[in-house]
Amino acid sequence: MKQLFRQWQELSDLKKELTDRNWFPATSGNISIKVSDNPLTFLITASGRDKTKTTPDDFLLVNQNGDPVLETDLRPSAETLLHTHIYNNTNAACVLHVHTTDNNVITNVYDKEVVLCNQEIIKALNIWEEGASIRIPIIENYAHIPTLGENFRNHIYEDAGAVLIRNHGITVWGKDSFDTKKRLEAYEFLFQFHIKLLSIKGGVQHGANSYS
Amino acid sequence: MKQLFRQWQELSDLKKELTDRNWFPATSGNISIKVSDNPLTFLITASGRDKTKTTPDDFLLVNQNGDPVLETDLRPSAETLLHTHIYNNTNAACVLHVHTTDNNVITNVYDKEVVLCNQEIIKALNIWEEGASIRIPIIENYAHIPTLGENFRNHIYEDAGAVLIRNHGITVWGKDSFDTKKRLEAYEFLFQFHIKLLSIKGGVQHGANSYS
Amino acid sequence: MKQLFRQWQELSDLKKELTDRNWFPATSGNISIKVSDNPLTFLITASGRDKTKTTPDDFLLVNQNGDPVLETDLRPSAETLLHTHIYNNTNAACVLHVHTTDNNVITNVYDKEVVLCNQEIIKALNIWEEGASIRIPIIENYAHIPTLGENFRNHIYEDAGAVLIRNHGITVWGKDSFDTKKRLEAYEFLFQFHIKLLSIKGGVQHGANSYS
Amino acid sequence: MKQLFRQWQELSDLKKELTDRNWFPATSGNISIKVSDNPLTFLITASGRDKTKTTPDDFLLVNQNGDPVLETDLRPSAETLLHTHIYNNTNAACVLHVHTTDNNVITNVYDKEVVLCNQEIIKALNIWEEGASIRIPIIENYAHIPTLGENFRNHIYEDAGAVLIRNHGITVWGKDSFDTKKRLEAYEFLFQFHIKLLSIKGGVQHGANSYS
Repeated sequence: MKQLFRQWQELSDLKKELTDRNWFPATSGNISIKVSDNPLTFLITASGRDKTKTTPDDFLLVNQNGDPVLETDLRPSAETLLHTHIYNNTNAACVLHVHTTDNNVITNVYDKEVVLCNQEIIKALNIWEEGASIRIPIIENYAHIPTLGENFRNHIYEDAGAVLIRNHGITVWGKDSFDTKKRLEAYEFLFQFHIKLLSIKGGVQHGANSYS
Repeated sequence: MKQLFRQWQELSDLKKELTDRNWFPATSGNISIKVSDNPLTFLITASGRDKTKTTPDDFLLVNQNGDPVLETDLRPSAETLLHTHIYNNTNAACVLHVHTTDNNVITNVYDKEVVLCNQEIIKALNIWEEGASIRIPIIENYAHIPTLGENFRNHIYEDAGAVLIRNHGITVWGKDSFDTKKRLEAYEFLFQFHIKLLSIKGGVQHGANSYS
Repeated sequence: MKQLFRQWQELSDLKKELTDRNWFPATSGNISIKVSDNPLTFLITASGRDKTKTTPDDFLLVNQNGDPVLETDLRPSAETLLHTHIYNNTNAACVLHVHTTDNNVITNVYDKEVVLCNQEIIKALNIWEEGASIRIPIIENYAHIPTLGENFRNHIYEDAGAVLIRNHGITVWGKDSFDTKKRLEAYEFLFQFHIKLLSIKGGVQHGANSYS
Repeated sequence: MKQLFRQWQELSDLKKELTDRNWFPATSGNISIKVSDNPLTFLITASGRDKTKTTPDDFLLVNQNGDPVLETDLRPSAETLLHTHIYNNTNAACVLHVHTTDNNVITNVYDKEVVLCNQEIIKALNIWEEGASIRIPIIENYAHIPTLGENFRNHIYEDAGAVLIRNHGITVWGKDSFDTKKRLEAYEFLFQFHIKLLSIKGGVQHGANSYS
């Protein structure tokens, strides 16, 4: 039980921090944290609740199929399937899915993927080579969740990663809540930076093109 | 009386939340919540007060004509008529009217209506079809409130909805304060997103046009 | 003394509110509030202090010439002269001078004045006609304060008003601190709105031109 | 010891203030404050920690070579070398290095340096002439820290200064933490202002060009 309480508190703190950034507009977004490996269980945000509040109904414990472990009136987030795909296929222990206007815009600027390079902040993704580039896939926003899940699953091949869904936010996963939050902040920084740069493109004088 | 106190507190919390977002610049904006159906009464912000403060004079109870129910020195918001039109014609229980630079800009980009589609956040408006589109009417900003009210009333035909007034904010209504806040956040997210996208339009490479 | 303490507190609250908006970057800006009419005295921010802190040295009382009334080690703001010009020539009781990137940008877009019209928020300036327009003069930023003061004084002809100094913020005055804050918020809203609109100008489709 | 405790508290307050501005995205950035001159020691942020938290492990004391003075499990920031170059070559007592999307963008707009002039906020840099201009060098972001350090050192020739690293934030130093924070705020204000102006360039009507 100690682990459950500790993870609840960690996820609750994280929810508050992301709420303060306005990263859950209109009750959107969902986040989860792993509680046990055998059997696999994780805490995930309940569906449709006001994330500006902190309550005992904020999260519920679900199993590897995304079904509630304990009897409850709460429904897990409609997109719990994406979380189960990640936990079932990697060693990730935290998944964050948020909508921002920046991550929404970036999926209207690029088609199948965003490629960014030459940014110091890429080191937050644990990539240390000079001039390293990163690639974030963009998938279509299928309303049918199992179809969305299948397309999403094609891009899960590491213990830490990120996928953009067109006009439907970003999903980031990592080894723990601190690592995953750091990755999410890095992606959002890069998107905001890139969009600002595009908005003044006509004025860009520096020869080097930082983007593929 | 219990219902009155509860609704006062709910409206007061909402006022604080929207104030913290800076959605009442220069004392603009007005919000209300229904207290009873028979007779119709609702609490509405008093005119011209500093919304960054919480005081016993923040709201007053008015009837179906927008007149104060109890003797008071306070004047209801000058635009109370728009609220009475909504409560008299729908089952809405909350009305929010706020000014943001984004909702102001959008009424300078489009003429009679804004149409947005293919956005996940549209689900916050309780619309669930894939590729659904929404349409927010824009009306002119008549200084004569009864004329403004008549034009506004033409667009009230559902229990939840929204109308933009040119250079004069958005008015959103819904079944309760939580639902209405969620809708308002969804609209503001969509406007901010759309304006950001327009600001980098030259750089847009993705073939699909998300907007009509 | 009661009036002095009350005004100190009011100015201190206002300083905190504007600090929270980040409207005093790099210790810039200065604000004042009138304490007495005969003789004229007002409290004004001390020069060069960290406005994120609240201390007994935040303000000092000065007379109609801007000289300290009581012995003090503090220097009044270098631009106290602009405040004395306002208090000596109008019935204003509060003066706010702040730098924002928006009010800085607007003085690089227009030359001698900014004219804005058809904005609901103009009512916050106590102007109620439909389609009313406002005009904010822009003066050059003379480093020689007496010269700056002379140019500034040419635009003081009402008990409430505003002047932009090129690349040097806006100065707003009004009948009390609440009224003056409201006016400042209205101007900043209008500038932010106008700059956002200019940034997407190519996309503007609405026929009516809101600006002269 | 008193000096050590006082400087720790000052650096901790500063860390919180910059965190609240979101100037340490994804655990990026590092800041330091001088504790003693003979021998040279300074407190610097430990590597890779969550800067939204306040803990006894936030900083560690290092010497003129950037090595820990006391036995510790913490590693000083990977870029401690830049701080030692500044403390060894000037009388500066504080160094701040932060990443913002604005300071990132500006290094993609200009090549070897940014030159800004005619801005009142330049006075925060202790430059008082009318029409003064400032010049901030931009260096390449070498992953090899000693090489980065050598290039950085070429631009250290005053007790207060600033250097931009391409896509890798700004480093600012000054005579104490208050002065250095003021300078950093001034630079960030100027970058944000300049980028906003560039984003609406087509609309700029004012004849005078404020930038070289």
